[in-house]
Amino acid sequence: MTHKIAILGASGYTGAELVRFIATHPTMEIVALSADRKAGQRMADVYPHLAHLDLPVLTTIEDIDFSGVDLAFAALPHGLSQALVRDLPDSVKVVDLGADFRLRDPAEYEKWYGAPHVAVELQKQAVYGLTEFYRDDIRGARLVAGTGCNAATVQYALRPLIENGLINLDRIICDLKNGVSGAGRSLKENMLFAERAMDVLGYAQGGKHRHLGEFDQEFSAIAGRDVRITFTPHLVPINRGILADCYVEGDAQVIHRVLAARYADEPFIHVLPFGQAPGTGQVTGSNLCHIGVIGDRTPGRALVVAALDNLAKGSSGQAVQNANLMLGEDETTGLMLAPVFP
Amino acid sequence: MTHKIAILGASGYTGAELVRFIATHPTMEIVALSADRKAGQRMADVYPHLAHLDLPVLTTIEDIDFSGVDLAFAALPHGLSQALVRDLPDSVKVVDLGADFRLRDPAEYEKWYGAPHVAVELQKQAVYGLTEFYRDDIRGARLVAGTGCNAATVQYALRPLIENGLINLDRIICDLKNGVSGAGRSLKENMLFAERAMDVLGYAQGGKHRHLGEFDQEFSAIAGRDVRITFTPHLVPINRGILADCYVEGDAQVIHRVLAARYADEPFIHVLPFGQAPGTGQVTGSNLCHIGVIGDRTPGRALVVAALDNLAKGSSGQAVQNANLMLGEDETTGLMLAPVFP
Amino acid sequence: MTHKIAILGASGYTGAELVRFIATHPTMEIVALSADRKAGQRMADVYPHLAHLDLPVLTTIEDIDFSGVDLAFAALPHGLSQALVRDLPDSVKVVDLGADFRLRDPAEYEKWYGAPHVAVELQKQAVYGLTEFYRDDIRGARLVAGTGCNAATVQYALRPLIENGLINLDRIICDLKNGVSGAGRSLKENMLFAERAMDVLGYAQGGKHRHLGEFDQEFSAIAGRDVRITFTPHLVPINRGILADCYVEGDAQVIHRVLAARYADEPFIHVLPFGQAPGTGQVTGSNLCHIGVIGDRTPGRALVVAALDNLAKGSSGQAVQNANLMLGEDETTGLMLAPVFP
Amino acid sequence: MTHKIAILGASGYTGAELVRFIATHPTMEIVALSADRKAGQRMADVYPHLAHLDLPVLTTIEDIDFSGVDLAFAALPHGLSQALVRDLPDSVKVVDLGADFRLRDPAEYEKWYGAPHVAVELQKQAVYGLTEFYRDDIRGARLVAGTGCNAATVQYALRPLIENGLINLDRIICDLKNGVSGAGRSLKENMLFAERAMDVLGYAQGGKHRHLGEFDQEFSAIAGRDVRITFTPHLVPINRGILADCYVEGDAQVIHRVLAARYADEPFIHVLPFGQAPGTGQVTGSNLCHIGVIGDRTPGRALVVAALDNLAKGSSGQAVQNANLMLGEDETTGLMLAPVFP
Repeated sequence: MTHKIAILGASGYTGAELVRFIATHPTMEIVALSADRKAGQRMADVYPHLAHLDLPVLTTIEDIDFSGVDLAFAALPHGLSQALVRDLPDSVKVVDLGADFRLRDPAEYEKWYGAPHVAVELQKQAVYGLTEFYRDDIRGARLVAGTGCNAATVQYALRPLIENGLINLDRIICDLKNGVSGAGRSLKENMLFAERAMDVLGYAQGGKHRHLGEFDQEFSAIAGRDVRITFTPHLVPINRGILADCYVEGDAQVIHRVLAARYADEPFIHVLPFGQAPGTGQVTGSNLCHIGVIGDRTPGRALVVAALDNLAKGSSGQAVQNANLMLGEDETTGLMLAPVFP
Repeated sequence: MTHKIAILGASGYTGAELVRFIATHPTMEIVALSADRKAGQRMADVYPHLAHLDLPVLTTIEDIDFSGVDLAFAALPHGLSQALVRDLPDSVKVVDLGADFRLRDPAEYEKWYGAPHVAVELQKQAVYGLTEFYRDDIRGARLVAGTGCNAATVQYALRPLIENGLINLDRIICDLKNGVSGAGRSLKENMLFAERAMDVLGYAQGGKHRHLGEFDQEFSAIAGRDVRITFTPHLVPINRGILADCYVEGDAQVIHRVLAARYADEPFIHVLPFGQAPGTGQVTGSNLCHIGVIGDRTPGRALVVAALDNLAKGSSGQAVQNANLMLGEDETTGLMLAPVFP
Repeated sequence: MTHKIAILGASGYTGAELVRFIATHPTMEIVALSADRKAGQRMADVYPHLAHLDLPVLTTIEDIDFSGVDLAFAALPHGLSQALVRDLPDSVKVVDLGADFRLRDPAEYEKWYGAPHVAVELQKQAVYGLTEFYRDDIRGARLVAGTGCNAATVQYALRPLIENGLINLDRIICDLKNGVSGAGRSLKENMLFAERAMDVLGYAQGGKHRHLGEFDQEFSAIAGRDVRITFTPHLVPINRGILADCYVEGDAQVIHRVLAARYADEPFIHVLPFGQAPGTGQVTGSNLCHIGVIGDRTPGRALVVAALDNLAKGSSGQAVQNANLMLGEDETTGLMLAPVFP
Repeated sequence: MTHKIAILGASGYTGAELVRFIATHPTMEIVALSADRKAGQRMADVYPHLAHLDLPVLTTIEDIDFSGVDLAFAALPHGLSQALVRDLPDSVKVVDLGADFRLRDPAEYEKWYGAPHVAVELQKQAVYGLTEFYRDDIRGARLVAGTGCNAATVQYALRPLIENGLINLDRIICDLKNGVSGAGRSLKENMLFAERAMDVLGYAQGGKHRHLGEFDQEFSAIAGRDVRITFTPHLVPINRGILADCYVEGDAQVIHRVLAARYADEPFIHVLPFGQAPGTGQVTGSNLCHIGVIGDRTPGRALVVAALDNLAKGSSGQAVQNANLMLGEDETTGLMLAPVFP
């Protein structure tokens, strides 16, 4: 059985990445692609790498007939999904790749995103899309909120440690190195090639990054108390990938053992042998997340490193994984593409 | 039915790329991987991006039991395949990704590669692996010689023009921009990151590049007279991709029409609308080749631009495509992976 | 004696590059920096790499007191210099880095830039800024028109050959590889890091690039007949640099000899030994141009390769070199900075 | 007065960088260049970007007449300087860019470098080359030991904080992002362009990096007790630059104030306004170090970020700065080159 898929916001990088995964997905068929400002264009004009595919012409969202849609991916700028999803027919399942439904508490949403939520009821129903930890809820959900790409990376590294009380919750420092595609295809001077190509630069340091809302929500819920990590993302000149170095206080060997056990049966999470750490290049283009654990020379300190592709496992791959569950497919369907290296 | 596959020389980039394609190929199974200097290691140690796959440990070629092998890919340094293939059981089909069997004339081989061929009989039987032009021969072949990556790119642009007598054979200039992976994983000072990262540099200019042997052989055979193109490759700081700018004398509109017609039914060759030219980024990781034609302001001059991924359509993707034919599979099986962008 | 310098349009890359060169220039002092949209900001905010310098705050052009200015560099978008320079006091010498005064024929200007010239008298007086060929005129000029960066590169390779009648004027093909900074700091989707980082892409092929106006003017004037070269620039993922491969018909050895002799006493033009070709990385950050000549396997064909840094010798370094002459300084003052590699 | 300079080990990146700085240094003259394996070659062959300079041919060290040498820079692989410097005439001052004389305690040297020191007396006399903190000793020294590039970066960020007792000495975490040139020009598979270009990867995590010997020595000496920082370097795809994120416990505002005061008169150390952090791109090619301080959302936590160019301020620029002092020159002579951006 083929599932009819709509992609809303297909002209961004996560939209294009959804098309890439679905192109070889055996049971999904794209029936609508929207891109408000580029409506009327062919996807091949917007993304020449997709020219070989037989795709619908880009339209406005208004022009989509949702009666023939089983599931919609919403890859829209933050703030636009709320009203939109509220107004879709109930028959349409939704995977939202933006930030609109990630935070369960309307006050937290307003704090981080600067405006009140306009679909508070939906916000309550949305399931947080970190598949490996919300799998059962996702299976039955109508609306799944894809995680932030940074939020996914760090949670894969740390959730089992917090769940098992293995680390000092007051001293968690996460230093991330981020591929530039995370900023999307929008025009910003600091995203020009000449600005980024030979530069490494931190941003939103000290507690200003919006993904902290997700960390606070998730880690505090697991721990049963407030957890406030220190978090610094950096722009590095790679197209795709997030490397998260998580400095924690705990027993490195135990940490490794717990992570290895937790993810032993997960098809997309791969824990390296103790003492090895991944690089971003080993997951590019795939839905995989690689995790490594290294002990520090100071006993009781450990480094947990996680690597994933922000556009794949950090966003569009995760979205397809969740959609597979929502549509009754095997979770890995269409997602076993091997990483592209070099 | 599953075909048992051996990859000889699996520790190079084309070897890893073969593994990548076969990882999601529905009817190929890798039963042996060789890498003489790395025998005993796991593929995950040599290529961490393949760690999620269940693969045989690397061995020497001598340790492979070829009785259980249907087809071997030979991704060996130039010169090593000749004796090796000669000594394999006849039951093993072979796709050679190196240069040993590309040139039909032993004298030409010796001229370009500096040593006499040691398997002249096999050399005669080998079929040249440019699938779209040797498809029927490939289907029945025991030994297929994969083309040079530059040779493939330029031939896709020019063969139909020479076949149809559309261009001046004495004035063909091909200027190529080449991704660095084309040099393989061997240690050369000029291939270090710091040397290449902010540099563009031509090499083997003026007629010294060995792929000229293929051009001379193929274009002269088609034309029925000697054809000697001017050919300049360049190292540009991209991992994958070849962009071939072919400057020809002929009618640009006619050239475009002939190319578009010739490739209309080819699943992997895509001719862009007249006046558009491809970039390498739009085919990365895929088995696609994109071709564009642009007319010059001087009438009777045209620019034909072809782009492909040197590791995929230029080498390992082409090899799988040929293997599909040799094994009775549909030619596109396992090869429809969409390009990875950005 | 110190010369008082104003830089108009200091917020673009060529503006910043002027500041870089002047920072260690012994007899130039920057007294004014304009940047209309960023007026009021400090240069350190716009370009953190210049934070260690004691520089005037950015202003509008209107706020500059030109009575205290000896020479102004105009690094403005095309079209803005014409009226501006017309209205400056005669006492201010001007080096224009834009395109407004490069073409002597108003009709040619309108043809390539799409609007009539508004300062035709000035246009007649402007001296073309290719220093090595217009040195004497530049020395006495009030207004010098900096060349296009592509135009400079190719002219260094070809002018002596045309002057000496060494090549076939009807078959000149120039294939250029261009650093991304040539597009400036303006916001364009195709200049984002993620778009350019792993891509090589031609543009303005077939005769559409505006620098062709300069080639046509200069080469035709030298030859005494119309010369129309074929010219294809490409975006390659480097920050700085132009590599020009010029395919010509002529005797390679003679070509090399003439170029070597012509540039033997030029401080910034370096001709490599016969058979060697430069890469862009060997001139980065310097005011040097390296040239190589290679013979083709087809007798009577040659490849002339020129490399320079588009922001330096191709634009701001050239501008300072011309300013040195106009101000009575030694031409090399402040310009002998060695290239930065790697 | 001109100082006669020899560069031992001129074929590595730090050797080439010394030549670059000295090329425009007004009072240094290069009289000898050694490179054992490349003896007999011209520097232009080894480094085409230096082709415009009139330089001595490369020789072996044995062939250098040290009687005419005032100061030698030793840019040799670790372990080779010890015996060499011991055997030089006393009249030759030495700046060693390697690790041989950085550690004052022979036991520490052996611990980190795996072999006993062979010139223990010299080791005692060597002055540690962190100019801003050892300036007076350097002025009178015969032998100065250049610091590790990582060691310099982190010490600029942290020394004043430790000296002033501003931070918790038991919880210092330094996460570094390193340009690839730090690995030198030696042939390693993991330094190939294709390996590094789209990858970010940590190495020597957990306390294995040799620069920790310097940190331990210096920070413990200042603090008067053992200090053991956590330190993780990463390979990021930039040619030059180190970004050090130092996570400390202390009052961010006080930290900023103390750093700003400490470096107010330093010509090469620039402290940004509170709340701003530098990127590596803003110091490329210069002898500058930029430092920023940001407060964390958790009170009492701060992030101190330092950026410098590993080949310049981290190595060869620092070496020239020290040589200036040793030779009685102004410390900044020849070193005020502005950064190259983009």
